[in-house]
Amino acid sequence: MVELLSVRLEKWEKATEWPLTVLSVVFIAIYAWQILAEPTGWMGALADWSMNALWVIFALDYLVSLALAPRRWEWIKHHLFDLAVVLLPMIRPLRVLRVLSALNVLHRTGGMALRGRIVMYAAASVLMLVLVGGLAVLDAERYAPGSSIKSYGEALWWAFVTITTVGYGDYSPVTPTGRIIAFALMLAGIALIGVVTATLASWIVGEVSADEQRATEVTREQVEAVSKRLERIERRLGVLAAGEADRGQVVSSNDDEDPDD
Amino acid sequence: MVELLSVRLEKWEKATEWPLTVLSVVFIAIYAWQILAEPTGWMGALADWSMNALWVIFALDYLVSLALAPRRWEWIKHHLFDLAVVLLPMIRPLRVLRVLSALNVLHRTGGMALRGRIVMYAAASVLMLVLVGGLAVLDAERYAPGSSIKSYGEALWWAFVTITTVGYGDYSPVTPTGRIIAFALMLAGIALIGVVTATLASWIVGEVSADEQRATEVTREQVEAVSKRLERIERRLGVLAAGEADRGQVVSSNDDEDPDD
Amino acid sequence: MVELLSVRLEKWEKATEWPLTVLSVVFIAIYAWQILAEPTGWMGALADWSMNALWVIFALDYLVSLALAPRRWEWIKHHLFDLAVVLLPMIRPLRVLRVLSALNVLHRTGGMALRGRIVMYAAASVLMLVLVGGLAVLDAERYAPGSSIKSYGEALWWAFVTITTVGYGDYSPVTPTGRIIAFALMLAGIALIGVVTATLASWIVGEVSADEQRATEVTREQVEAVSKRLERIERRLGVLAAGEADRGQVVSSNDDEDPDD
Amino acid sequence: MVELLSVRLEKWEKATEWPLTVLSVVFIAIYAWQILAEPTGWMGALADWSMNALWVIFALDYLVSLALAPRRWEWIKHHLFDLAVVLLPMIRPLRVLRVLSALNVLHRTGGMALRGRIVMYAAASVLMLVLVGGLAVLDAERYAPGSSIKSYGEALWWAFVTITTVGYGDYSPVTPTGRIIAFALMLAGIALIGVVTATLASWIVGEVSADEQRATEVTREQVEAVSKRLERIERRLGVLAAGEADRGQVVSSNDDEDPDD
Repeated sequence: MVELLSVRLEKWEKATEWPLTVLSVVFIAIYAWQILAEPTGWMGALADWSMNALWVIFALDYLVSLALAPRRWEWIKHHLFDLAVVLLPMIRPLRVLRVLSALNVLHRTGGMALRGRIVMYAAASVLMLVLVGGLAVLDAERYAPGSSIKSYGEALWWAFVTITTVGYGDYSPVTPTGRIIAFALMLAGIALIGVVTATLASWIVGEVSADEQRATEVTREQVEAVSKRLERIERRLGVLAAGEADRGQVVSSNDDEDPDD
Repeated sequence: MVELLSVRLEKWEKATEWPLTVLSVVFIAIYAWQILAEPTGWMGALADWSMNALWVIFALDYLVSLALAPRRWEWIKHHLFDLAVVLLPMIRPLRVLRVLSALNVLHRTGGMALRGRIVMYAAASVLMLVLVGGLAVLDAERYAPGSSIKSYGEALWWAFVTITTVGYGDYSPVTPTGRIIAFALMLAGIALIGVVTATLASWIVGEVSADEQRATEVTREQVEAVSKRLERIERRLGVLAAGEADRGQVVSSNDDEDPDD
Repeated sequence: MVELLSVRLEKWEKATEWPLTVLSVVFIAIYAWQILAEPTGWMGALADWSMNALWVIFALDYLVSLALAPRRWEWIKHHLFDLAVVLLPMIRPLRVLRVLSALNVLHRTGGMALRGRIVMYAAASVLMLVLVGGLAVLDAERYAPGSSIKSYGEALWWAFVTITTVGYGDYSPVTPTGRIIAFALMLAGIALIGVVTATLASWIVGEVSADEQRATEVTREQVEAVSKRLERIERRLGVLAAGEADRGQVVSSNDDEDPDD
Repeated sequence: MVELLSVRLEKWEKATEWPLTVLSVVFIAIYAWQILAEPTGWMGALADWSMNALWVIFALDYLVSLALAPRRWEWIKHHLFDLAVVLLPMIRPLRVLRVLSALNVLHRTGGMALRGRIVMYAAASVLMLVLVGGLAVLDAERYAPGSSIKSYGEALWWAFVTITTVGYGDYSPVTPTGRIIAFALMLAGIALIGVVTATLASWIVGEVSADEQRATEVTREQVEAVSKRLERIERRLGVLAAGEADRGQVVSSNDDEDPDD
């Protein structure tokens, strides 16, 4: 990806990272307010207007980034998710994932920290998906005939039951939009099981193979000792060779041959 | 498997790979058309006739391959799945898996790519299973008494809820055929969890054990340095030995003994 | 465990392994016949009598094994499962697991084969649990008020839905016995996910770490080359030392000292 | 964490570990008695009074520990769970987890034992969560309108169906408290799948990589052999050098140079 970024694009991305993260949070807040409080009159209009304004800002950021990219088709191919977020109003709540990617950047360290970072990232993603997925499902299902999800409490409960793949079935979406959101939550649930299991497995494998690692370290230390011993031998042979040379016997013609073979 | 293939069988398989893949897709398309549009009259007859013709082609391919195989019983044992696909009209939609195996052949590369290939293969299999499983379940359940799956939308939703092992229970098959399809989707769901988790685990274990790998590499480099140092020592000893030889002292009788022990 | 077995106990276990496996299968067959055909009159009495006779044989085997064991308390502690099978008539169907352990003994080979064996063992266990669990649940639920599981087909469907942790909820046990069987199937389901995932993870980790293994092999080959080179050096030094000795200079007093340090 | 503990705090924790574990068990017992027997009159008052007394003891332990901690803010940050247990009466049953941590301390051994310990710990946690979660859900749901969980048997069944992520939906909580308990059980279920899978994966990976470990050991043994051989060479060179020295040729100026390069 590095080769796709001009210096100006990098500067633009650095400059807009924090403002866009803040705007994403504002976006989610207004989205939540629209769904939970269902504002009408001038407040509803304000909410609509703000959403549209934010959408224009996100679209502008996309267009400016595209204009600054040296190889545009490559850049579009690597930013299909951003394009989808800009073009599809329905999955616009996913914009909040930008917050998570920002969090990720803040916690780059090595070794053990990787597992901690993965767990934190997974927990934050799950929480965000449940909170925002609940909002989106409530929005889609609330007034649908035959729907059972009528309040944010029920939507949250449903989202949690779905993301853990428990699936009681006491609440389940009936609208196409609600079911697409359910797909996302279910896949996130499988990813969640995967992340929890993989992190645990990595930890257990690491603990159990600590002995093996120690064996490798012991080997390395032995090889180092061998190397030092050889240095001493070489020095001593230098002494011997010098002694021979002093006795006037030059045998440079044999230097590269092995008389044993 | 290589030893079971004569040159002629290999040629036949290579020649028929792409045509059969295309016919499998056509097969699925007609299958979907039959179930979704429920064609009647001459169109229904056309669909039935096409399905039968395709079945004859698949059966012929099986028989020709069998005839070309050098050890026929071995070949049958290694191609039980193909036999089942030819013999059981019910699981004939599985023929589409040929498309996936073709995809797999196209993406053979090493290392990191393995994980990418596994994920792509799993995603394609899940999508195919959901789409074709939904068709098959709709076909089996649509007119069954007490069934709840009446449209392809509902069938898709059910298939997705099943393959993710969420299982709300808002829709569930009631016919034996529908339940056998459900078995396949549930097992695919467990395999899906397995693939996602295993791929993640492999990635995390790999990241964490990068240090360990570096340790192994350091050891190898040290051993190489030791080896080079020994070469120099051996050469120098050759010089010394030649010096001794020049002084006319031949000690070949001691050559293979160790005077220290 | 080896230290708990006298030679006579080992002989007894070897001699009874196959007869007991056959009797276990007969046991399951009669159990299935009792539940599915619900025999009455003299046939019902025959089934009851056979079950009791088989139970006596299993109990006798337990008592003889216990009598032959050198350290009885230790043996009891290591065979609590067998004790439970003998004492609790309810989980007696678990006796069929003996068949699986026999299968396991037949397929002992190394390396790659381990994964194949695990998968085969898991598949056989799941199939057995579904078939026998379905029988047991049908037996417990069939005439219970409020129960929905009325036929073996429904019981099998329920068992499969449970073991894959899908849990639609279209059928679920209402009796304590049925629910205890459900516990076993659910736990088996989690173990199934674990086995599938772990086997896949092991395979992927193995494929990815093949490079690492090659690195270790390269190091070993280099160390071997170093070792051979050192042998040649040592031999040559022996020649030199013999030359020195010929010149009449005996320095045995310095033999164990390192003059450099 | 070690650096946060003064000697006095360590002494306090050691002295209170067992009494607090016993009190936690008593706490659970009274909690269970309150919910299952629903004592009224003076017995109900006694139960309430005991619970409050135990709560005061736990709170006092927290305050004394805090007072003894050298860096109080650090200590609070590392003991947020204890703070929550003291402050939130609702999740007070979680105090029983102290029993588990005590169990853990008792079984500290190396290698293979780790997996056994993890499995035992997981099994104990799951059992405890099901038993206590069932109590808590029964308490929350029993008299709630529209609730289906009316007895401890039903609550246990529900808890087990939830923790295995099967989720039939025949029983599901309707109160906020019941649903929060369900969240905990679902997350525990995902952790359970993770622990089972990770332990199995670690075992399979270990079995399969046993060959690799053997290769590392072989390398180490070879390196040791090389090291011993070098010792003999060095000794022999000492003999040679001493011989040269005896002939009166001192060449100390060449000692650190390599005449070959």
